[in-house]
Amino acid sequence: MSTAAEINDIEEGLAFRPKFDAAGLVTCVATDVATGEVLMVAHMNDEALRKTIASGEAWYFSRSRNALWRKGETSGQTQRVVEMRLDCDQDAIWIRVEQRGAACHTGRRSCFYRKVEAGEAGAQLSFVNADRLFDPEKVYPK
Amino acid sequence: MSTAAEINDIEEGLAFRPKFDAAGLVTCVATDVATGEVLMVAHMNDEALRKTIASGEAWYFSRSRNALWRKGETSGQTQRVVEMRLDCDQDAIWIRVEQRGAACHTGRRSCFYRKVEAGEAGAQLSFVNADRLFDPEKVYPK
Repeated sequence: MSTAAEINDIEEGLAFRPKFDAAGLVTCVATDVATGEVLMVAHMNDEALRKTIASGEAWYFSRSRNALWRKGETSGQTQRVVEMRLDCDQDAIWIRVEQRGAACHTGRRSCFYRKVEAGEAGAQLSFVNADRLFDPEKVYPK
Repeated sequence: MSTAAEINDIEEGLAFRPKFDAAGLVTCVATDVATGEVLMVAHMNDEALRKTIASGEAWYFSRSRNALWRKGETSGQTQRVVEMRLDCDQDAIWIRVEQRGAACHTGRRSCFYRKVEAGEAGAQLSFVNADRLFDPEKVYPK
């Protein structure tokens, strides 16, 4: 447990002390600087965070590939970071980005291309802004 | 590992099958429907997700308190959900909300009231939109 003074330092201080989880990651939300749309939610480890801050280009850590990854290194769909923010308890990052092309590996501008609504038999999904900007079959090697 | 057909179902299907982590949670990003600002990043378990969809008010699961929680139940700072979206691999939720008052327990409109920038001795923080809309000492019981 943290003391009140420690919590105050984290929440009100100006020292950057990201709180990584047990896997060494923080959550990162990327939004489109022009529209405010959430483009993706991903993770950064310490190195991804440092590289993002130093370069102004978004770097992430892929849990499925267990690898550091510069956004767009395969697809060309890079993210230029206009602003980075940190949340109250320093375990989440928000970056406002200029997205080149599409953020989602399925080829959509945003990963959030389906809407969730209450239905008679539970929640229902429907597509929204789900047009593909690229064909993932052509962009990613098999 | 999932097969290509299973991944296709998750990514392209219209069945709502949220992928909870080992703790039974999905990440949820709440943005201000009027400004696009990220208000907070939190977690939902299955029950929080179902209650949010059914009621149109945001419910979360607090990891620190290990409890289901209706946003604003103590502070009065509720969130009305205008739209809910789901990401490609169904492990993150985005809700666009009408935020009553302040989303952050520190009294700020957004939890993201500090900017991160590269500095000479590493990353530096500075406050941005950090005015308090309420005094947490007066709102939360000790």
